[in-house]
Amino acid sequence: MDSSSDHSPSSSLHSTGDVQNVKFCQWCGGPTKPGIPEGEERFRAICTSCGKIAYQNPKMVVGCLIEHDNKVLLCKRKIEPSYGLWTLPAGYLEMGESAREGAIRETREEANAEVEVISPFAQLDIPLIGQTYIIFLARLKNPHFSPGPESSECQLFPLDEIPFNSLSFSSMVVTLSLYVEDKKAGGKPKFHYGTINKRPGTSASDIHAYTLDHHMQS
Amino acid sequence: MDSSSDHSPSSSLHSTGDVQNVKFCQWCGGPTKPGIPEGEERFRAICTSCGKIAYQNPKMVVGCLIEHDNKVLLCKRKIEPSYGLWTLPAGYLEMGESAREGAIRETREEANAEVEVISPFAQLDIPLIGQTYIIFLARLKNPHFSPGPESSECQLFPLDEIPFNSLSFSSMVVTLSLYVEDKKAGGKPKFHYGTINKRPGTSASDIHAYTLDHHMQS
Repeated sequence: MDSSSDHSPSSSLHSTGDVQNVKFCQWCGGPTKPGIPEGEERFRAICTSCGKIAYQNPKMVVGCLIEHDNKVLLCKRKIEPSYGLWTLPAGYLEMGESAREGAIRETREEANAEVEVISPFAQLDIPLIGQTYIIFLARLKNPHFSPGPESSECQLFPLDEIPFNSLSFSSMVVTLSLYVEDKKAGGKPKFHYGTINKRPGTSASDIHAYTLDHHMQS
Repeated sequence: MDSSSDHSPSSSLHSTGDVQNVKFCQWCGGPTKPGIPEGEERFRAICTSCGKIAYQNPKMVVGCLIEHDNKVLLCKRKIEPSYGLWTLPAGYLEMGESAREGAIRETREEANAEVEVISPFAQLDIPLIGQTYIIFLARLKNPHFSPGPESSECQLFPLDEIPFNSLSFSSMVVTLSLYVEDKKAGGKPKFHYGTINKRPGTSASDIHAYTLDHHMQS
């Protein structure tokens, strides 16, 4: 996946920050200006020529947590951001596919692995960057995997050897921590929902400087 | 919520249908043309002037299934599409908010109700229209509710009186059916994941002409 795309942090519901990314109308090419459409409460980029509104919404990142012989499959990233760090196979959901299909596709692309999805495992929202992670538990249909074009290595890790200090994103720290906790507690992994917020004053690159808020499980 | 925005059906992963909605570059105003960027496999709208790519991704619709005295709260829509039909309070997730926050906001806007979110209940993907519904179970913080600007009525329905033939969208039929099944089975409602697909050859307005595929529960 490529997490470097154009997402502006927006902590205020009434911020004009996001709308300023859209300078021109995608339908007619006219210049836009920020304004609050009638009946709405937020600033949007509104076309000064045709009047259409450019809505911007959070994106879903879909991926698989693959269980095999009491190990989990991680990929080492061969692309920025987080080059050289470990991740679950995951990427942006595309138009025309379900989250389940997207997670299977990303696993095929990043780990050359064919998986069967077992159950939904986590939804983790990151409001600061307009992303929601949707992670499924999955199993390998056969024991073959190898690095795809965006990975330099793919490796199965026993739970007590997961490289928590060399993971790519906070979302991966949270997902794998919840998984390890569920497995240690015995029984079937749960479904988890939560919001990942950056701790104020911490570095954007410190993947451990987060809080997991409103954690709920089913 | 307004479900009438610009979503094109896209059943083919390699369709150029979506990219043709983007005629001009939002950053520089230059004309775009469909093309497959290097290292990718899908058609994207690429700016012929600055070279930037306009990615398009599915949107999340977030809402609440509100339990109160063994009844559920529904709103009658005062806007198109599905004017006059019943819905859970729900709408597009906005930048800068979590799914939980968005579901609470939509409930405030559509039913003037203050709710506490209890647990995640369902994720329902609708690949045909590029939407994913994220529905939470919630309870009223106080017994007050009334129609917001997009609703003509808000009403509590006992489970055996839910107006299944007057619901607004297939997603509402699925969500409420799963909820009624869980309640009839006793115990705590589960978390459900599934994909809603239109049955081929059926009318777009027939909310019962769907299949729920890959249904999984936690």
